[in-house]
Amino acid sequence: MEPIELTPIGVIHSPFAEPGEAPHQGAEADAPAEIVLADGMAEGLQGLEAGDWLWVLYHFHRSGPARMLVHPRGDRSRPLKGVFATRAPIRPCPIGLSLARLEAIDGQVMRVRGLEAIDGTPVFDIKPYAAGLDRPRPEKKP
Amino acid sequence: MEPIELTPIGVIHSPFAEPGEAPHQGAEADAPAEIVLADGMAEGLQGLEAGDWLWVLYHFHRSGPARMLVHPRGDRSRPLKGVFATRAPIRPCPIGLSLARLEAIDGQVMRVRGLEAIDGTPVFDIKPYAAGLDRPRPEKKP
Repeated sequence: MEPIELTPIGVIHSPFAEPGEAPHQGAEADAPAEIVLADGMAEGLQGLEAGDWLWVLYHFHRSGPARMLVHPRGDRSRPLKGVFATRAPIRPCPIGLSLARLEAIDGQVMRVRGLEAIDGTPVFDIKPYAAGLDRPRPEKKP
Repeated sequence: MEPIELTPIGVIHSPFAEPGEAPHQGAEADAPAEIVLADGMAEGLQGLEAGDWLWVLYHFHRSGPARMLVHPRGDRSRPLKGVFATRAPIRPCPIGLSLARLEAIDGQVMRVRGLEAIDGTPVFDIKPYAAGLDRPRPEKKP
């Protein structure tokens, strides 16, 4: 398939300098982080408020080459699993997805909690969490 | 910021040929669709089962140029809102995120329900839904 070029909208500043330091999933950390948006992007935040839950899509920029089978959470005692059945960072398109809580917006800077990403991580997108879309739905009866 | 190149892992086949035909959000449709994986990717599905809920990340490949302010759901009677406060497809990095239910896997072909995407949409990633990560969490008390 043809490669697709995406230009990040900003970058994450976090307390984690190296991949080993970041928690396996942001939800476990609740650590503070900042998203610094590129010039011209801040207008796109209109309507967001402190306390909102946001999807942050970002680039696992230091995750290394993809593998089709991985040990869940990098734990070699756990049996290999297909990468698409895990949230491992080493994936063919290394896009990370984390749900974070917005704490404040100051110009181009968003203060958030709940991101696992390491310092310098490029951000692709920010989307509002929508309970009606983002939870498993009961199966419709035929 | 420097552009990042991502090579899709597959393509969506859906009943929707044109952007106007697709529902605004897959959750509303529960329409069937297929994800046809590129060669070499099917091994990454090991461990997934029919009935699993999956995040599908895909390219809004026909969404047009990004705008910072949009009318929610394209409805001009609704006031403009920052694009990052909406799920509109016209975004700076046009990545779509939908939660879909896996119905079956047949080699490189996944049958799913709940995707809004139009036919031919490139797929970037597939991740398992994880209730512990993917729902808003109660705030920790200081």
